[in-house]
Amino acid sequence: MTISDRSVGPDQIIGILGGGQLGRMLALAGARLGLPFDVVRRITEADYSDEEALARFAGDVDVVTYEFENVPARAADFLASRLPVRPGPMALTVSQDRVREKTFARECGLAVPDFAPIDSVDDLARALETIGRPAVLKTRRFGYDGKGQVVIRAGDDPARAMAAIGHQPAILEAFVSFEKEISVLVVRGVDGEIRHYDPVENVHRGGILRTSTVPASIDVSLGARAALTGTVLAEKLDYVGVLAVELFVTRDGQLLLNEMAPRVHNSGHWTEAACHCSQFENHMRAVAGLPLGSTSRHSDAVMQNLIGNGVDKWRRLAAEDDSVLHLYGKRDQREGRKMGHVTRLSPLSRD
Amino acid sequence: MTISDRSVGPDQIIGILGGGQLGRMLALAGARLGLPFDVVRRITEADYSDEEALARFAGDVDVVTYEFENVPARAADFLASRLPVRPGPMALTVSQDRVREKTFARECGLAVPDFAPIDSVDDLARALETIGRPAVLKTRRFGYDGKGQVVIRAGDDPARAMAAIGHQPAILEAFVSFEKEISVLVVRGVDGEIRHYDPVENVHRGGILRTSTVPASIDVSLGARAALTGTVLAEKLDYVGVLAVELFVTRDGQLLLNEMAPRVHNSGHWTEAACHCSQFENHMRAVAGLPLGSTSRHSDAVMQNLIGNGVDKWRRLAAEDDSVLHLYGKRDQREGRKMGHVTRLSPLSRD
Repeated sequence: MTISDRSVGPDQIIGILGGGQLGRMLALAGARLGLPFDVVRRITEADYSDEEALARFAGDVDVVTYEFENVPARAADFLASRLPVRPGPMALTVSQDRVREKTFARECGLAVPDFAPIDSVDDLARALETIGRPAVLKTRRFGYDGKGQVVIRAGDDPARAMAAIGHQPAILEAFVSFEKEISVLVVRGVDGEIRHYDPVENVHRGGILRTSTVPASIDVSLGARAALTGTVLAEKLDYVGVLAVELFVTRDGQLLLNEMAPRVHNSGHWTEAACHCSQFENHMRAVAGLPLGSTSRHSDAVMQNLIGNGVDKWRRLAAEDDSVLHLYGKRDQREGRKMGHVTRLSPLSRD
Repeated sequence: MTISDRSVGPDQIIGILGGGQLGRMLALAGARLGLPFDVVRRITEADYSDEEALARFAGDVDVVTYEFENVPARAADFLASRLPVRPGPMALTVSQDRVREKTFARECGLAVPDFAPIDSVDDLARALETIGRPAVLKTRRFGYDGKGQVVIRAGDDPARAMAAIGHQPAILEAFVSFEKEISVLVVRGVDGEIRHYDPVENVHRGGILRTSTVPASIDVSLGARAALTGTVLAEKLDYVGVLAVELFVTRDGQLLLNEMAPRVHNSGHWTEAACHCSQFENHMRAVAGLPLGSTSRHSDAVMQNLIGNGVDKWRRLAAEDDSVLHLYGKRDQREGRKMGHVTRLSPLSRD
C-alpha cells in the first residue's frame, strides 16, 4: 500500500459482522467515503464458532466492526487478537449482559433503575421484596425489540414469570414510570475525540421503536446531561465508533440509563436525512480512523419505522414532499419485522 | 412475482450501462430505495457490439438505464427491442450529436448559439464568414470535459483548427460571451409528471466543471425560464429520468442552450446533500416507474469537484463542519480526473 494510494481516499477494507439493515446502511455510507463497497463480507451465525472462517475473514479485511451486540465474545476475542475490532470486545462484553451493563453504568456514576441478578425463582422472590412491584424481569442476554421480558405486577406468580422467559439467567429491574424515553448517540474516534448528535425522543409500542423525534421536547440542561452520559460511557469503555444510549426521563426530571447498544442504532436513522454526516458515516469514519464528521443538524426530523405490513404504504410515502424514504430491500414481510423507515424533515426550529 | 412481494418495495432489477462514478451513485441511491444493489451489472465498452453479451444483460434485468450518453445507438436499439430503456433511444440520438441537439432545441423553440455543421475545411471557412469570430469548433460526438473543441479567433487558420480536432465531423458555434453558466435538472416520470431542481450556477475551468452553487444569482423569472427549457425538452423527447440542461446567460439576459445530457449530471451532485430526494434517487425512481420524489431544498449549497490531486485534501475536507464529502473510490489519480466532490451546506436563504 503506497502513500499515493492513501492520498486518494480511505483504502481500508472494513469487515462488517452481521448482514441486516444496519450493516447494509453502514456499507452504503462507507461507499460514499470511497471505501470499496462490493467487498463487504459477511459471516453467518454458524461461522462464529468456526475459527477457520474467522481467520479467513480476518485475512480479508483491515479492521472489523459489527452491526449487532450479540457477536459471541469468543469470536470477538479471536478477531481482536489478529486485527483491530472497533468498538472493542469490552463494549461487547458489557452490553451483551444487562447485569454487567447496569453494574458498569453505576460504576461510572450514572443512575440506573434498581436491579438485581436473578438465577432462580428464589432469587426472584427475594428481589421482588426489595425492588417492589411492578418490576420487569428480563433475560440477561439476547433481548431485543421487547423480546425476553415480562412485567411482574401485584399478584403475579414469580415462578410463572421465570417460566415465561424460559428460566434463563435474568435481571429484575424496577419498573420505571417514565415521562419520556430519549436516546443519545455519541461517536468517538480512535484519537479519543467525542461528538454527539442531538438527543431524540422515542416512542415504543409492543417493545419496538415506532418513532424518533428531534429535537426532543426536553430542556437544554437535560439534553446536556444525556449527552454527558454517552460521553462518560464512551470514555470509560475506550470506545471507537457510534454508541447508542437509551434513557428514561422520570416525572421528577431524573435520567436513568435503560440500555446501551455498541453500534449504530434505529433511533439514529434520522441522521442520514437531517445531518451533514449520518451515524452510519460517522461510525465508518471512526472505525477507519478518519476524522469524525459534523453531527450538527440542518433540519428538524421525525423518523418513523415501517414495520411489518406498515411498509405496504411505501408508494404513498415515496410521493410525500418532505419525506426521505429508506427501504431495506427485504423480500419477506413478517409481523414486527423492520422493513424500512421514513424521515420527515421540517425547517430547523430555533430557540 | 406475487403481489405481496411487490408490496414490500420496488422489486425491479435496474441495469446500469457504464461503470463510472455516476453509475456508482445511482446504484447507491437505488439501494436506499430497497432495490437489490449487489446485482448491479456492467458491460464493458467492448461488449456494446457483442449482441450475445447484450442479450444476456437484457435477460438479467427488468429495465435499463445508463450513466453516459455515448452508448452506441445500435446497442441502445437492440436493448430497447427487448425491454424498457429509460431514457429512450431518442434522447441518446439527439444528445450524442451536437448538430442534432441544437437543431432539435431550435425546433422546440429554444434559443441556441448560431451554429453550422462542418465536414471539411471548406465548410469551416464558409461558416466562419456567416458566424464570425471568435467561434468554437467542436466535434459533433464524444466531447466531454472540454475535450474535442478549439476556439477560432481572428487570424487563426481554419485548416489548423480542423487538424486540432482530428478532422472529425464537427459543428461550428458562435462564441458566446456569457455572463454566467447555469444548469437545470428536470426529472420526468413514466406518467409524464415533471419536476425540476433549482437552477444552479456553474464555474468551469479548463473545460471541467469546478463548482455548482445554488441558488444561482439570477432573478426568479430567469430561473423559471431555465426550468421551462428543461421541461420543454423533456416533454418533446418523451423523456423518462433526469435530464440535465446547460445554459448560457448572456449579458443582455438571454438564455442560450449550451448542451444537454440525458442522465444525472455533475452539476446536480449537490442534490444528494441539500434535497429531500437526490437527482440519483429521482432518476432511479423515474426509471423504475415509481412516484417522483421532492426536488425541494432544505439548504443552500456549493458543490466543489475534487479533480486530480485536488482530492489529496480529503482528510481536511472530511473534518469540515458544514461539508458533505463524497469520494468515488478511484485508486488511480490522474490530472483532470474527477475523484470526488464536496458539498458545503448553509441555511436556506429566503427571498
